[in-house]
Amino acid sequence: MEKGLRDYQDGDRVDQNVLIKDADIRTAKNGKPFIALVFSDVTGQITGKFWAAQPEDIANFKKGRIVHLKGLREIYQTKPQIRIDKMTVMTNETLKAEDFVPKAPLPKTDLQSELNAFIFKITEAKWNRIVRYLLNERGDDFFKYPAAKTNHHAYEGGLAFHTISMLHLAEAMCRQYATINQSLLYAGIILHDLGKTIELSGAETTSYTLAGNLVGHIVLIDEAISRACNELHFDLDDEKIVILRHVILAHHGKLEYGSPVIPKILEAEVLHQLDEMDASVTMISDALNHTPSGHYTQRIFAMDQRQFYKP
Amino acid sequence: MEKGLRDYQDGDRVDQNVLIKDADIRTAKNGKPFIALVFSDVTGQITGKFWAAQPEDIANFKKGRIVHLKGLREIYQTKPQIRIDKMTVMTNETLKAEDFVPKAPLPKTDLQSELNAFIFKITEAKWNRIVRYLLNERGDDFFKYPAAKTNHHAYEGGLAFHTISMLHLAEAMCRQYATINQSLLYAGIILHDLGKTIELSGAETTSYTLAGNLVGHIVLIDEAISRACNELHFDLDDEKIVILRHVILAHHGKLEYGSPVIPKILEAEVLHQLDEMDASVTMISDALNHTPSGHYTQRIFAMDQRQFYKP
Amino acid sequence: MEKGLRDYQDGDRVDQNVLIKDADIRTAKNGKPFIALVFSDVTGQITGKFWAAQPEDIANFKKGRIVHLKGLREIYQTKPQIRIDKMTVMTNETLKAEDFVPKAPLPKTDLQSELNAFIFKITEAKWNRIVRYLLNERGDDFFKYPAAKTNHHAYEGGLAFHTISMLHLAEAMCRQYATINQSLLYAGIILHDLGKTIELSGAETTSYTLAGNLVGHIVLIDEAISRACNELHFDLDDEKIVILRHVILAHHGKLEYGSPVIPKILEAEVLHQLDEMDASVTMISDALNHTPSGHYTQRIFAMDQRQFYKP
Amino acid sequence: MEKGLRDYQDGDRVDQNVLIKDADIRTAKNGKPFIALVFSDVTGQITGKFWAAQPEDIANFKKGRIVHLKGLREIYQTKPQIRIDKMTVMTNETLKAEDFVPKAPLPKTDLQSELNAFIFKITEAKWNRIVRYLLNERGDDFFKYPAAKTNHHAYEGGLAFHTISMLHLAEAMCRQYATINQSLLYAGIILHDLGKTIELSGAETTSYTLAGNLVGHIVLIDEAISRACNELHFDLDDEKIVILRHVILAHHGKLEYGSPVIPKILEAEVLHQLDEMDASVTMISDALNHTPSGHYTQRIFAMDQRQFYKP
Amino acid sequence: MEKGLRDYQDGDRVDQNVLIKDADIRTAKNGKPFIALVFSDVTGQITGKFWAAQPEDIANFKKGRIVHLKGLREIYQTKPQIRIDKMTVMTNETLKAEDFVPKAPLPKTDLQSELNAFIFKITEAKWNRIVRYLLNERGDDFFKYPAAKTNHHAYEGGLAFHTISMLHLAEAMCRQYATINQSLLYAGIILHDLGKTIELSGAETTSYTLAGNLVGHIVLIDEAISRACNELHFDLDDEKIVILRHVILAHHGKLEYGSPVIPKILEAEVLHQLDEMDASVTMISDALNHTPSGHYTQRIFAMDQRQFYKP
Amino acid sequence: MEKGLRDYQDGDRVDQNVLIKDADIRTAKNGKPFIALVFSDVTGQITGKFWAAQPEDIANFKKGRIVHLKGLREIYQTKPQIRIDKMTVMTNETLKAEDFVPKAPLPKTDLQSELNAFIFKITEAKWNRIVRYLLNERGDDFFKYPAAKTNHHAYEGGLAFHTISMLHLAEAMCRQYATINQSLLYAGIILHDLGKTIELSGAETTSYTLAGNLVGHIVLIDEAISRACNELHFDLDDEKIVILRHVILAHHGKLEYGSPVIPKILEAEVLHQLDEMDASVTMISDALNHTPSGHYTQRIFAMDQRQFYKP
Repeated sequence: MEKGLRDYQDGDRVDQNVLIKDADIRTAKNGKPFIALVFSDVTGQITGKFWAAQPEDIANFKKGRIVHLKGLREIYQTKPQIRIDKMTVMTNETLKAEDFVPKAPLPKTDLQSELNAFIFKITEAKWNRIVRYLLNERGDDFFKYPAAKTNHHAYEGGLAFHTISMLHLAEAMCRQYATINQSLLYAGIILHDLGKTIELSGAETTSYTLAGNLVGHIVLIDEAISRACNELHFDLDDEKIVILRHVILAHHGKLEYGSPVIPKILEAEVLHQLDEMDASVTMISDALNHTPSGHYTQRIFAMDQRQFYKP
Repeated sequence: MEKGLRDYQDGDRVDQNVLIKDADIRTAKNGKPFIALVFSDVTGQITGKFWAAQPEDIANFKKGRIVHLKGLREIYQTKPQIRIDKMTVMTNETLKAEDFVPKAPLPKTDLQSELNAFIFKITEAKWNRIVRYLLNERGDDFFKYPAAKTNHHAYEGGLAFHTISMLHLAEAMCRQYATINQSLLYAGIILHDLGKTIELSGAETTSYTLAGNLVGHIVLIDEAISRACNELHFDLDDEKIVILRHVILAHHGKLEYGSPVIPKILEAEVLHQLDEMDASVTMISDALNHTPSGHYTQRIFAMDQRQFYKP
Repeated sequence: MEKGLRDYQDGDRVDQNVLIKDADIRTAKNGKPFIALVFSDVTGQITGKFWAAQPEDIANFKKGRIVHLKGLREIYQTKPQIRIDKMTVMTNETLKAEDFVPKAPLPKTDLQSELNAFIFKITEAKWNRIVRYLLNERGDDFFKYPAAKTNHHAYEGGLAFHTISMLHLAEAMCRQYATINQSLLYAGIILHDLGKTIELSGAETTSYTLAGNLVGHIVLIDEAISRACNELHFDLDDEKIVILRHVILAHHGKLEYGSPVIPKILEAEVLHQLDEMDASVTMISDALNHTPSGHYTQRIFAMDQRQFYKP
Repeated sequence: MEKGLRDYQDGDRVDQNVLIKDADIRTAKNGKPFIALVFSDVTGQITGKFWAAQPEDIANFKKGRIVHLKGLREIYQTKPQIRIDKMTVMTNETLKAEDFVPKAPLPKTDLQSELNAFIFKITEAKWNRIVRYLLNERGDDFFKYPAAKTNHHAYEGGLAFHTISMLHLAEAMCRQYATINQSLLYAGIILHDLGKTIELSGAETTSYTLAGNLVGHIVLIDEAISRACNELHFDLDDEKIVILRHVILAHHGKLEYGSPVIPKILEAEVLHQLDEMDASVTMISDALNHTPSGHYTQRIFAMDQRQFYKP
Repeated sequence: MEKGLRDYQDGDRVDQNVLIKDADIRTAKNGKPFIALVFSDVTGQITGKFWAAQPEDIANFKKGRIVHLKGLREIYQTKPQIRIDKMTVMTNETLKAEDFVPKAPLPKTDLQSELNAFIFKITEAKWNRIVRYLLNERGDDFFKYPAAKTNHHAYEGGLAFHTISMLHLAEAMCRQYATINQSLLYAGIILHDLGKTIELSGAETTSYTLAGNLVGHIVLIDEAISRACNELHFDLDDEKIVILRHVILAHHGKLEYGSPVIPKILEAEVLHQLDEMDASVTMISDALNHTPSGHYTQRIFAMDQRQFYKP
Repeated sequence: MEKGLRDYQDGDRVDQNVLIKDADIRTAKNGKPFIALVFSDVTGQITGKFWAAQPEDIANFKKGRIVHLKGLREIYQTKPQIRIDKMTVMTNETLKAEDFVPKAPLPKTDLQSELNAFIFKITEAKWNRIVRYLLNERGDDFFKYPAAKTNHHAYEGGLAFHTISMLHLAEAMCRQYATINQSLLYAGIILHDLGKTIELSGAETTSYTLAGNLVGHIVLIDEAISRACNELHFDLDDEKIVILRHVILAHHGKLEYGSPVIPKILEAEVLHQLDEMDASVTMISDALNHTPSGHYTQRIFAMDQRQFYKP
């Protein structure tokens, strides 16, 4: 694979097409306007500043445009950026924005068939029906949304990919520990982050909705499950329903992480730990993939700003 | 008023009718059975042990019976208890269990008319209808349940009394601060603990239900509000609905106290602080009422085991 | 009311008289001097930078001058500032600095008569005399000082206004809870922050004095109360005096907030909670007043950097 | 399987052979001696008290004896115990102490062949040789020791069983995440708790040695690895050696849990999370296995005293 | 030296005169009265219970009496106690209570002359005069009071002994670090705990006074220093006075330990650390003195319940 | 002594020879290169920026060069720096880099003879031999290395100077407290930070080695002690060896500060407190030495960013 934006090292020359993901007009210390840019390609993102911007520059270098970028990759205040030498707007219609954003490592059809295989193994009828009901309702978004705004799996299809990674690990857990209820764990995993399709505004822009901010994805999906139960005529007091809701409500593991209850069911604790496992291995691996041997990664925000060494 | 169970000091003689709230058969260190009793009257509760219990004693001194109790109030391992001299079962039918439990300081009719006056001031139509809908559904329990299992307002009607105390303080707050939305604050206060009627098993026994333990009263009432909105055909995405849900979800003030979101609306913060204010003044006052001048109260569990001095 | 400095939104033109509250000469990255300015009017403050300052600019745009300011309100690194287009020194003598700083919402005479009404209700003679003695001594400063250097009620008369707000809430509390000793609570509230008149340097500049930094307002007012007792021939061992001192020493509520003792008297706990209530509602309301509907306030420093949504 | 000591419910009659694991002579409140006993069989342990012990009882009911026990399973101060009706010393020589203690669910030969298969997959020569060197030295203890004094896998062979459980999960992790170095993770897992064979006194009694208390198993195994390197003529400054030592030193995950460094290598973080996963699922499962449906487990000490619900 | 109460090991016979420090009448589980006793001699204290107490026993074995005690030293629920075989009241008038309590290792005259030598080295006139003024006022108590109610130096003269130990260490510090102001450090040390003579009720009984509980020794001595300054006509705003007050107010080192300000002067930080050093070495040494080689001490309450090993 | 780099106040003219300790080429906001410099002389370090650097400037002003510097000392974003007017490379060969870095206040020969005197007092033969063995091995580095990368004693010889300061205080401690084992405390102090000669890369550049980062100086010196014992044929299970290792392993005092065990021996606790004492007094004194009377020091990073007042 050719080098992309997250592959360059300090001092490398950049000379490729990129998508302008964000373009913000600001005032420099000398009073002149400049454009603060975020560039994107399939490998990820990097920032750059276009100094002394003329009105025509501001008109050309807008969010959503694809440009040919020449410049130098450098470090400014501990963070990587592109020192821009030249930018040219590309008008070639075969260049599409969707080809300049990172994607899940597997195509949607593969994710779908993997998911179906797991749903098939949910042998408890009520849980199976609730899962199907909600995926029926929110399935399109489930395969399009990222798993988080920035920290991990922050790409198109990230939510589905994260969910299926967890299901794989869950499969090994069930093989190892006879006490785990496989149906409950699978149903819980599939639903645990589905509320993010309500919490976040969309797969592209990915900001928080008002309900996302004031209610949060954990309670939003709980409300959806309750509504599904009403539609399916399942009693909310049925123990099967109470423990499914619990497994999802408790998946952040601690009150201070935003779960209104801590895990009080084995499967809730396992779900929580698998979620942490997949998120942290993914974040560390992603950082290591952009670090040369014998160096430390950049600080990883969602892991207490820790750095990891690449042997 | 005559002295009751919580009024006695160390060394006082006890000679009155009491309700047996709880009676647990255990084995003493010498191998003989004894009955661990909880006595109750309108002033509150106290424990006692009936040693060397014969089968007929075990048959007589059961939970729910009213007995005439003679004994001595003493301190055992820092806690007050009754050293029992004599217990006689009372068969007089005019003695009713409900007269031997603490009650809200105001009769239900007063609480109801006070509450109605506040509901009348909720001028936002949707909030007003949601409040009426849910009180219609759960009103009987609202006026019967305690506000908590043990810590504060742990008596019949305690939930309603706590709610109305908060409404009184809220009224003063609204007079003082023009920025507070009175309708939102009142609606939030009335609904904030209504989930306890689902979380707790009842007004008398008061244990946690399975849903109380695994879902919790905050999410339970949120689900009820969402369902009410569906019934009333209110859009769940309507900002009015989102902020009402938020005000209630956030009322514990911090994630580590079990709210899935922290207060992000002025009224949510105010509701939280009024809840703490009423709970703590009530707990301290209750403890002071059973403490003589010049002494410290017993440690108050829900206030970090603190003690307060009575001048 | 006309728009003032804290009312502008991003992109608004500014064209009005302002007071230069602070003017600091610094060196720009290009080596040239600039003036870092703080502008003030009755609505509050905002910063701005005067680039490439000539010696005559430095001579003209000094702290304390009133100038006519033209410019643009913008956001620089998440904080609002004025991009200055033009500044002209105003020499009109009718323009007075004191008209360009925020003020308490009530005139001093109103504050005074309100305060007197509350003092009148302190029926315990010793507490009443101590309050009068200390207000006699420090009364001028009490009505002039802010309640804090920056966080809340940071304006002329803020200390008195904050005190009286708390007294209003205290009145409602005393009506609601029979256990509260009204005289003790009122006396405690009036004295609780009076030490700030020793801790802070004055109403205008408002920096910390050496004693403010090394002893702190809580111990400074305690020393003043002790001295007052000596003058008034009150025994320091008298329980009435000990509990009054306690109520004030404990008003920060927790050791880690700087109180040398935690509240061990009901009124001390209530005073602490009322202090928090008035401070937080005031800070949130102030932030909301400068935020348009549908947006979040700026982060509020003294409330854990939290943001609040304005519906 | 027949019922054993940990299978009884409250009120069940006990009538079986047991091992006296511990027998402590104490004085009752009435001044008479009694024997505080710990009974054991293959299902686990339970306590009991033999009251009013005569000298011949004290002589008979000693640690290590097998006795026939008749009694009642009851709860005393929230903990289960046996109320003893009768105890008879068993002199039948076919009864052996080793048949009255819990064992790993797999026989030693199975554990050994599983372990060998994993060692075979450590393809980095130095790590492979260090692992073989240390297992050669401490292998007997490795298959005999428990994984911990009390919390989890606290039975003969527990250390090996815990290690192999983690290796199984590690296998699934390596399949899922290409970035993980399988050799490093396997070598780290096999060695991570081997220091417990120095820290603990033995498989039966299991108390802490002086070095266990004052140095701890993490540093003890690090010293053993360093010594192995010296014997095998591996340079301690070789990066391969440094990162292997790191992976083991960091496996408690946080400084406050006793690791002198936090994980700074991907495999160190994964090892830590797998350790937590296996320990917590094992502890919860063990507690659930002794809890009837519809009830909560006893509090689990090493999981913050949490309780889990068994659906 | 002969063995005393704190020298006995488990199983040792006790046969010596002791002082009854405390005698509390309680009811045993079998309903009969017993006396809970605290015995004392010059080595320290130990508890014991006198079962089945007759009225004449209760009359004889009172607080303050000297008795001849025969019994056995044993461990009950992890704590040492005396199992009493026989107690006889001693009427010999040469036996005095004051000879049955622990004492400072140095006689008062030595402590006084040591203290005077240090005061002589306080060369700053104001600090010297304040120290003399307050020692003049409270000197008798200074040489009689303990340094704390229970934790360390809890014996007659303990306050003076603790103070002088710190002065010795301070002397070495001043020799080592030229930046330390010796006069300020010595004056601060001498005054730092003098407030305990107001906080505690006396040298014998040692409970907290009301002012001790509600104001605390740190603020109590600050008030005394302020009063001394008024008497000596020293200006409270004089920097010399402000920093002396600061050094004492800050000596607990952190807000959460009860200092209203943290150390902001070098000498304040040093005083705090010397205080911790002397307290902890004294507590550990005291515990080690009552522990045989090869064992751990009892848990030390004021050091986070830690235990120390005696090689 | 003449003024040096750390002696200047704001606005002072600088005109002296300095060493360029570090020179980093960066890009200014206007796109032009500048050199970010760190200057050093015997008093310490300060930063400066050389704007609009030409290629010949970059070639001249390199790390390791001695230059004559003219400029102005000013504050930029709360930190002191030099605004450079002119820099001239000095080619005079009598100017040596080693004369432009801070040094220990005592020459190496003095430090050596002081150290020998203390070693002589280690009367326990094994500890004495281990100390000699390791100083023999690492002695050159011991007298050359700093005690830390930046916080305290960060100069050539700092490690030895810090160690000997602690030994002086330890001497006073042993005089004061009979329970302290002088040999153990001295041996522990001498070895406690010797691992820094492995953890850090050298006396001049002072970065962390890989083993420093992934293993840490505490475990590195423990491994060296273990190896020394093997060489000297001392049994690692000998209690004398275990407690020496413990005293060093525990010297950070708390797990969260990186010690794998907390102090469980009196001397371990004392060593920890002496380490903190010497480090904090040195940091505060160093900051005070560069602060004028009546001002606060800069924030001290390793003391929770606290500031200290200089009377």
